[in-house]
Amino acid sequence: MCGLVGAYNIPNASTPAKLMLFGLQSRGREGGGIASSDGKKINRVQGFGLVEQFLTGVKMKARLPGRIAVGHNRYSTAGAKGSLSCLQPFVARTASFQIAVAHNGNLENADELRRRLESHGSILASTSDSECFPHLIARSKKRVFRNRLIEAMRKAKGAYSLLVMTRDKLYAAVDRYGFRPLWLARWKKGVLFASETCAFAPLGIKRSEMREIKPGELVCVSGGNAKTAAKISARRFAAAPFTRHCIFELMYFSQPQSRSWGEEVWEVRERLGERLARRFRIDGDFVLAVPDSSNKQGERYASVSGITFRQGLFRNHHSGRTFIQSTGLERTVGVRMKFSVAEGMYAGKTVIVIDDSLVRSTTMKKVVRLLRKAGAAKVIVLIASPPVISRCRWGIDMATKKELVAATHSVEEIRRMIGADFLGYLTVPDVLEAVGDPCGRKYCVSCFTGKHPYK
Amino acid sequence: MCGLVGAYNIPNASTPAKLMLFGLQSRGREGGGIASSDGKKINRVQGFGLVEQFLTGVKMKARLPGRIAVGHNRYSTAGAKGSLSCLQPFVARTASFQIAVAHNGNLENADELRRRLESHGSILASTSDSECFPHLIARSKKRVFRNRLIEAMRKAKGAYSLLVMTRDKLYAAVDRYGFRPLWLARWKKGVLFASETCAFAPLGIKRSEMREIKPGELVCVSGGNAKTAAKISARRFAAAPFTRHCIFELMYFSQPQSRSWGEEVWEVRERLGERLARRFRIDGDFVLAVPDSSNKQGERYASVSGITFRQGLFRNHHSGRTFIQSTGLERTVGVRMKFSVAEGMYAGKTVIVIDDSLVRSTTMKKVVRLLRKAGAAKVIVLIASPPVISRCRWGIDMATKKELVAATHSVEEIRRMIGADFLGYLTVPDVLEAVGDPCGRKYCVSCFTGKHPYK
Amino acid sequence: MCGLVGAYNIPNASTPAKLMLFGLQSRGREGGGIASSDGKKINRVQGFGLVEQFLTGVKMKARLPGRIAVGHNRYSTAGAKGSLSCLQPFVARTASFQIAVAHNGNLENADELRRRLESHGSILASTSDSECFPHLIARSKKRVFRNRLIEAMRKAKGAYSLLVMTRDKLYAAVDRYGFRPLWLARWKKGVLFASETCAFAPLGIKRSEMREIKPGELVCVSGGNAKTAAKISARRFAAAPFTRHCIFELMYFSQPQSRSWGEEVWEVRERLGERLARRFRIDGDFVLAVPDSSNKQGERYASVSGITFRQGLFRNHHSGRTFIQSTGLERTVGVRMKFSVAEGMYAGKTVIVIDDSLVRSTTMKKVVRLLRKAGAAKVIVLIASPPVISRCRWGIDMATKKELVAATHSVEEIRRMIGADFLGYLTVPDVLEAVGDPCGRKYCVSCFTGKHPYK
Amino acid sequence: MCGLVGAYNIPNASTPAKLMLFGLQSRGREGGGIASSDGKKINRVQGFGLVEQFLTGVKMKARLPGRIAVGHNRYSTAGAKGSLSCLQPFVARTASFQIAVAHNGNLENADELRRRLESHGSILASTSDSECFPHLIARSKKRVFRNRLIEAMRKAKGAYSLLVMTRDKLYAAVDRYGFRPLWLARWKKGVLFASETCAFAPLGIKRSEMREIKPGELVCVSGGNAKTAAKISARRFAAAPFTRHCIFELMYFSQPQSRSWGEEVWEVRERLGERLARRFRIDGDFVLAVPDSSNKQGERYASVSGITFRQGLFRNHHSGRTFIQSTGLERTVGVRMKFSVAEGMYAGKTVIVIDDSLVRSTTMKKVVRLLRKAGAAKVIVLIASPPVISRCRWGIDMATKKELVAATHSVEEIRRMIGADFLGYLTVPDVLEAVGDPCGRKYCVSCFTGKHPYK
Repeated sequence: MCGLVGAYNIPNASTPAKLMLFGLQSRGREGGGIASSDGKKINRVQGFGLVEQFLTGVKMKARLPGRIAVGHNRYSTAGAKGSLSCLQPFVARTASFQIAVAHNGNLENADELRRRLESHGSILASTSDSECFPHLIARSKKRVFRNRLIEAMRKAKGAYSLLVMTRDKLYAAVDRYGFRPLWLARWKKGVLFASETCAFAPLGIKRSEMREIKPGELVCVSGGNAKTAAKISARRFAAAPFTRHCIFELMYFSQPQSRSWGEEVWEVRERLGERLARRFRIDGDFVLAVPDSSNKQGERYASVSGITFRQGLFRNHHSGRTFIQSTGLERTVGVRMKFSVAEGMYAGKTVIVIDDSLVRSTTMKKVVRLLRKAGAAKVIVLIASPPVISRCRWGIDMATKKELVAATHSVEEIRRMIGADFLGYLTVPDVLEAVGDPCGRKYCVSCFTGKHPYK
Repeated sequence: MCGLVGAYNIPNASTPAKLMLFGLQSRGREGGGIASSDGKKINRVQGFGLVEQFLTGVKMKARLPGRIAVGHNRYSTAGAKGSLSCLQPFVARTASFQIAVAHNGNLENADELRRRLESHGSILASTSDSECFPHLIARSKKRVFRNRLIEAMRKAKGAYSLLVMTRDKLYAAVDRYGFRPLWLARWKKGVLFASETCAFAPLGIKRSEMREIKPGELVCVSGGNAKTAAKISARRFAAAPFTRHCIFELMYFSQPQSRSWGEEVWEVRERLGERLARRFRIDGDFVLAVPDSSNKQGERYASVSGITFRQGLFRNHHSGRTFIQSTGLERTVGVRMKFSVAEGMYAGKTVIVIDDSLVRSTTMKKVVRLLRKAGAAKVIVLIASPPVISRCRWGIDMATKKELVAATHSVEEIRRMIGADFLGYLTVPDVLEAVGDPCGRKYCVSCFTGKHPYK
Repeated sequence: MCGLVGAYNIPNASTPAKLMLFGLQSRGREGGGIASSDGKKINRVQGFGLVEQFLTGVKMKARLPGRIAVGHNRYSTAGAKGSLSCLQPFVARTASFQIAVAHNGNLENADELRRRLESHGSILASTSDSECFPHLIARSKKRVFRNRLIEAMRKAKGAYSLLVMTRDKLYAAVDRYGFRPLWLARWKKGVLFASETCAFAPLGIKRSEMREIKPGELVCVSGGNAKTAAKISARRFAAAPFTRHCIFELMYFSQPQSRSWGEEVWEVRERLGERLARRFRIDGDFVLAVPDSSNKQGERYASVSGITFRQGLFRNHHSGRTFIQSTGLERTVGVRMKFSVAEGMYAGKTVIVIDDSLVRSTTMKKVVRLLRKAGAAKVIVLIASPPVISRCRWGIDMATKKELVAATHSVEEIRRMIGADFLGYLTVPDVLEAVGDPCGRKYCVSCFTGKHPYK
Repeated sequence: MCGLVGAYNIPNASTPAKLMLFGLQSRGREGGGIASSDGKKINRVQGFGLVEQFLTGVKMKARLPGRIAVGHNRYSTAGAKGSLSCLQPFVARTASFQIAVAHNGNLENADELRRRLESHGSILASTSDSECFPHLIARSKKRVFRNRLIEAMRKAKGAYSLLVMTRDKLYAAVDRYGFRPLWLARWKKGVLFASETCAFAPLGIKRSEMREIKPGELVCVSGGNAKTAAKISARRFAAAPFTRHCIFELMYFSQPQSRSWGEEVWEVRERLGERLARRFRIDGDFVLAVPDSSNKQGERYASVSGITFRQGLFRNHHSGRTFIQSTGLERTVGVRMKFSVAEGMYAGKTVIVIDDSLVRSTTMKKVVRLLRKAGAAKVIVLIASPPVISRCRWGIDMATKKELVAATHSVEEIRRMIGADFLGYLTVPDVLEAVGDPCGRKYCVSCFTGKHPYK
């Protein structure tokens, strides 16, 4: 999923980049980095883990000087800790340019691009598809850098929100379908970029000062200094008859206080909760949401249905992933530590559990079991999305197809697997209506339908 | 505030100790340690920061072998990072004994004890009052270790929940007033100890297998091996005509899923929310709780008052404390990162904000300002506790008297300071009734009354 | 200068590689690395500093598995700590091959090669000239890997001793002039490679089992397993009418117990000491050698001249470079800590100081001053090499031309600078005769003559 | 063995302390620390390994502020890495004083002192005998600190050179027999202390500005500031009819450029070499010294006997101890890496090997074997000390009695064990005469005689 940030024409640009990265921590916890340019040289600091882990003690001004910076938070599956060379931003220096590239998304034709690059003698340092961008730029025969970038982007198929820093400019672009969000904000004499608006908020930036990079748009920021503002120029480099914004961003991945594609994330989630309440009129004692990404859906379900919202499932926010060892007791207990339940609250009651989605079903299975142990008479599970039947090739590392429980099981089978008394999902039309896209012209719902988003 | 854990007659006892410490992380984030005994020697691992920071990569079996272990999470004010020698458990070896001591609480007569110990030539390694215990034990002339321990505890005045490990026994004790919680659970052939029941839950232990250490009680666990269960013996070493359980444990500090002194923490909080709803019948559009320790109070306030519960204040669970540098932008923004608010949700609305307590008022001031910026027409603040007018000398490091806003300001002055349209508190009788102690025979409410709890 | 090691068809080949690297520590202290192949994948561990710093705690078997390994110690000037990407072995993975490359030497046409590679779209990760090799190999259109390697080496001009590991083979090559040493040894069922023979000795390998890679020779080791020995095949890939072995290797850089190009290093040094004694018949009380690389020259000078060898200059073998801070006292004293002198030993005496070479003259200046302070009446300085007047472009990072004192000063001027009573050098014919090359057909003496070695 | 340093009335006293500690690295490589006082508080930094390991990156001014400092290098046997609490200086804070104590030596009655302290209720943090000092000081009933210190020292039996820092004074003392060296030097407005004079030299201090602390002397440095010099007062606190300086300090442990008890270390070693030459008139081709502590003995042996001094045994100064793993190949080879030999130098020759002492014989065995492998016809081993037959209880951690080869074997048996053609030792009168103490009134030679030094 990944988080991108950028800053242009800001004194010590790496510092706001760091703060924005921290605000986008939820988009990637595996590792990350920041690169900055002081006009002559691009420097970079990278590391594994959280932003606060790899930047603690780093003297930003000394290690990452200059008025331009880009940063990246990496998201990756199941703890498969990659090598340092997979961390972004990628930095490349050649005779004709120095660049740092940060990418959010997934290229469909990555294997083919890589094969072609290598057959021409390029050596890629990592296994990441994102690294194709600097190499495609390097191989381009265009003279003007912007045209090299456009040529590279036209060769890439799939989802990409990109920040590309040269020694003196900062480019931002989004693929023609607009799979992943990317925002721009004017700040002081400069310009900031971030995957989500929540990264701008702590800097005191108002909504009116932000705008989204449009699908197929390439923004170039240049010029400016301590007294004059940076210049923003934008152009279309690709067009498509419809867009394919990732609906999972709204349903699960983005922060509730962010805005994307004209929607407040929290509002979409409330509307999904409302749809659930209208579709499933169930008599229960309490509504419970699996924290934290289902809270808004749950609260709204409760207020629309008139059933009391009463959270009794508590989440330990310290993941503990890094220190639990893979031996018997530690593993068993480590997993159980994520959630705990309030004793007595549900004894003899019917509990309606709301979750934003159901991917592999393992968490929900544990939640149902915990509630039963705590005495719940009935456990109703309502999912504020349709069944996920197809894995995403455009940037969400959900799981392999085999792990997607709804790809191979009926709703009734899943209900039995998780041990619920009832299991209900929304439909694809439900969610499309909730985001104001009844005809499916705006959003990618490929994970729910299995249909290719644009072919 | 601190968290204690202990394990006796469990193979590799340090592993459950580690897991329980992790479950008590919220009781202390400054640092901690675990000591274990293999029957011959006491080993220890300590460190600053979270359990997952100081235990990551530690091979428990090799570094902390044996069937007995005690652990400690340290809580401390305002980032004042102490020295390694302040971290518990304290370990002491003398010709006649080896012990590890973990203490939760605060001794009233610490200065006097220290002065007396030093005048006799003892050298204390730290500035912690807890270190008095091993020295008092060492100076005792009694022959039987248990009697040394009792003599030491009788000299100590104030709040102490203690775990004391020798090479082959584990002692647990609580001062005569029972200020701080301490629990015991039978597990397999052994016995576990923890400050809160939430630490036992992930191990699969049922409520019926746990019991509280009573005020003035000393429990000694001994014997046992792979086949026979450990023996528990208990005795009273001190008595008092009433108890003084810390009411702040229930209102704020403990985990909602824990049980203490006959109460489920979440239930007490719901009752406090209900009292607020009955005391302040206010017309509002939405109820909002300051996450996370006020959630239950807020939910219940909403359900009793019939006003919609709608959370629009989001908390960043990564503190960032360690990596924010003390320079201009970083500091300003770092502080703002803790909370963010949902745009649009409160525009033109009356919001009722519930918080568990109001100590220094700085957080609430920020929350009210955020809500106003987000367009709230009216902000009503209701506190689910009485005004805090006196600092705690029995284990909660709230703040100095000067920082306690209610110690020096009237409710109206505080309302103006935080910028709310209305500010309401519960009364002391309210909270005593909510915990079933209308005559004040069980709980310490000294921070609300300023009266010494037992003199 | 750098050190190379390789191991083929040895179980856990990275372990002998590590031990040999440790034995070549004097060839590079800036950092290094080892790469190994388990037949399927090439793994690598790298780091800054000494071998014992970057390999301490590394589980060789787990991190660097397999029967093939190459390693590299990096040498670099004046503390200019490069980036991680400059450390070797370079590892590259493409669709058609995986390789690890370790290089000792310097390419004359590095800038041109780099320019050409980049103009074709290659991205080089580092600023090291050594990285040209993997890229030249990648760009080659040959099908057979060996031919790609040969094509790459033919494009490279200058000094290179190379080890190139693929998933299942190990190649070793030396440029046509033989600038840098590289040795091969049969060991058990496998083959080892190292820059100097001293790396083989602790493994119990005899001289009769070692041989040098010849100028212009490419050796390929393949096949073999636990029971059958690896196969060595060798061919000439380039020829030259003369060789250009670096004479500085013998005079200064190599370990005294190593053998190179038919010479025992210690013997060459003794012969240089003898030449000094014959050229400068000076009456002195004691002979002193600047430790450690001038010891043999000094001892022999003493025995030939009949003057007592008496060391009174002691070297602190802990460099302290990493911990001396750049503030007043620390800097001043830090520098003085390298050498100390025995009080009283030289009072009123004439001391003949022998050094292997004089590059920047700063050390000798300090030595002379120390001896004078210790009361020496006369200080005679004899250098067992000619004046260094030209910097080396083939692998020894001596200094920039400006720093070479003899490039811009006469012998008399240098004598005055260092404060000696007499300063004598050997001549170029002296040293060529000492290495049995009176006609200058074998050795590069470019640093003493300023003439290009082969143009 | 350990190294002590101190600095008084020096701005940022911890910096010269650090530089002096670095100069005393050879006295202890296990770990160390520095404590400083800024007049109000004593701070400390400690760590394992070399000074450059535990002080790299430490900001001296910030972490160790103030005008007084003491430091300590710890020496310990066979890699038995103790716990952090064993590292000195010990720091103790009580109501009446704050002190830091650094000790070089060994207390004979440590067990008894510890037992007595513990029976009175003191808790000692470490197993080090040095920790008795702060506790004895704390238990003293004297009012004046100096008298407490004297009382403590009178209770301690055995060898102690001590530095004791309070918040505003610095005390230095040596036991009545003067086992271990301790020096004082005036520097600027302040006073420095160090175990060896070699630590003063890089600071530019002349011999005339240094003096030794005498046996039974207590020096107190006080007063002084940026403008006035510190005041030194000295007194005798104990007396003895003779002294017992450790002769091993001169023969092996101290740096050759240091001075102790009226002797230049290098001169003593030359005299020992001369004695060897006079006692054993042996015909050989070459003289070889085991580097580095036998170099002076070897050189002098050569010049007196007229046999050529020709070093062909080379020592790897990187110990590698920390990174060699305990598996087959690594261990075998790791040990062999310490020394290597010049091929060809000794072929068919008679080599006279000089070593300063022979404790366990393992190193010499390896050396003889290496020389034989290199073709030596005859290997004569001459030891510049008498046989070591008794282990030292006064500060040199030589080995246990069982490991002392001469304690249980005759000279002829040892010769066979090490494989030499001849083995010769000096006698006790030889060494006493070499240090100008023919009647044995000054030096402890207990390790050669087995007699208690003063009972």
